[in-house]
Amino acid sequence: MKAMSLVVVGSVAYDAVETPHGRADRMLGGACTYIALAASYFTRVRIVAVVGDDFSKEDREFLASRRIDLEGLQTAPGKTFFWSGVYSADMNERTTLATELNVFADFNPTLPESYRAAPCLFLGNIQPSLQRRVRSQMNGVRITGGDTMNYWIRDHRPDLLETIAEWDFLIINDSEARMLSGAENLKRAASAILDMGPATVVIKRGEYGAMLFRRDAYFAVPGYLLDEVFDPTGAGDSFAGGFMGYLAERGLDLTSERADRRELSRAVIYGSVMGSFCCERFGVDRFRSLTRAEIDARFREFEEFTAC
Amino acid sequence: MKAMSLVVVGSVAYDAVETPHGRADRMLGGACTYIALAASYFTRVRIVAVVGDDFSKEDREFLASRRIDLEGLQTAPGKTFFWSGVYSADMNERTTLATELNVFADFNPTLPESYRAAPCLFLGNIQPSLQRRVRSQMNGVRITGGDTMNYWIRDHRPDLLETIAEWDFLIINDSEARMLSGAENLKRAASAILDMGPATVVIKRGEYGAMLFRRDAYFAVPGYLLDEVFDPTGAGDSFAGGFMGYLAERGLDLTSERADRRELSRAVIYGSVMGSFCCERFGVDRFRSLTRAEIDARFREFEEFTAC
Repeated sequence: MKAMSLVVVGSVAYDAVETPHGRADRMLGGACTYIALAASYFTRVRIVAVVGDDFSKEDREFLASRRIDLEGLQTAPGKTFFWSGVYSADMNERTTLATELNVFADFNPTLPESYRAAPCLFLGNIQPSLQRRVRSQMNGVRITGGDTMNYWIRDHRPDLLETIAEWDFLIINDSEARMLSGAENLKRAASAILDMGPATVVIKRGEYGAMLFRRDAYFAVPGYLLDEVFDPTGAGDSFAGGFMGYLAERGLDLTSERADRRELSRAVIYGSVMGSFCCERFGVDRFRSLTRAEIDARFREFEEFTAC
Repeated sequence: MKAMSLVVVGSVAYDAVETPHGRADRMLGGACTYIALAASYFTRVRIVAVVGDDFSKEDREFLASRRIDLEGLQTAPGKTFFWSGVYSADMNERTTLATELNVFADFNPTLPESYRAAPCLFLGNIQPSLQRRVRSQMNGVRITGGDTMNYWIRDHRPDLLETIAEWDFLIINDSEARMLSGAENLKRAASAILDMGPATVVIKRGEYGAMLFRRDAYFAVPGYLLDEVFDPTGAGDSFAGGFMGYLAERGLDLTSERADRRELSRAVIYGSVMGSFCCERFGVDRFRSLTRAEIDARFREFEEFTAC
């Protein structure tokens, strides 16, 4: 097994966020950003996204400092995708105040030649037909995983089903799993989604942890208890980055008849670890100082507090 | 280590319950009932409770068939405690329709002489001063654990604090832990409760699992995914019975400077196992057929799906 490079597609954005612990008016965000940052601790990451001409040199340099390949980061005339939201007092709910797609409205992802032979692809939450188009540009991709959201599930269902049928895994939160499957019970929901194509389904439950389902394996892990949650923005995407990053680092083949159950469970824990770190600071700030040694130490904490 | 007998105090009741899967107008219930039934798979259980003269011979015989000692089950003139409730469609919320205390209103627990040397005591959710009075009737009890609820936390706080200061462990759900501690963050909530006296705090999170906190140990387990939840009534009490029952069976001493972390985690899993079985049928019905072999098989399932 050797580390496999990873192409990540999705949004790079500016976010305005308010939590009980403070606020930020304009900070680096977007699903692709969080996924790429989290995965960058495990493998070489190449991003495909679009930003406006207002995207700052500092933010570009920060991504590059994590050895993230920016050749696929297009710059278009106009403003970068902007999202703003506010969290409830217990941070279990958030209200979107504004979503300004800006240059993201015309995002037509085109992969640089240098990306096309990468063995791993993670399709962040964008229009399902665009996710499909990106995958078709790859040559011999070995693992495809992705994410989606309630909007595509509800209003673009046939398109979404065609798209995820080609994936090796889908990462989704519990309410989306229920919506996609039509089943309230999560075991049934997961089973229904496995019937849609992906051989592996990961269901995220926020602070309550995560679960991985395959026909031949099931794994569940409780959430990590933080001393303080500063900002949950990006935690789910950081989970996806940690999960996919670990698979890529270990060169795991999800398409094999019987995947390595132990390695899959470790990937879920690394996902949980990255999601937990993300919440410790505003936006992507925790990734400015985080080290692989800290990540591995928290992984060992998970092993310990779940050992029976 | 040898199995230690267990005294359980609390309510024995008749319940009327409606869930999306059906309804029962009058079935055996009450916290003491569920705790005792679950614990009866692990050790000899002796109950202290009161019922009215309407309490049926069949229900008494069912409890006795589980080798539960009924010498402390008083019968008073009048009706047995009655509770009725209805669950929401996703079963995450329930509405109490009626609470008729009946003979339970004048419950003054007195321990039979034969109970007083039992080494283990579980104080189900009753008035804190009554919980204290029961404990004072015991001779040299080695482990005391108990439960409480929002009403005592809010309106009888000094009394409750005096009571739990004497306990070795408290089992509580997450919202009660937040209310008792005043801390929203569960790690801080647990720490504040440890300061109140119990060296061990177990926080139940319903379908999301459970956590055990001590100064020297922390353990978390995800919930068991059932194919179908028929009726969650009594699941938390069954958890308590499984947890306490396992401690009693193994003769564990929670008062030692450093309790056995592995055995404590196994107790949390046995609690989770008993809570999960409870939900599979209406009321106490699952305990009519459940065997220790099934319990141990589900324990091994927990070991497998949480192993990393």
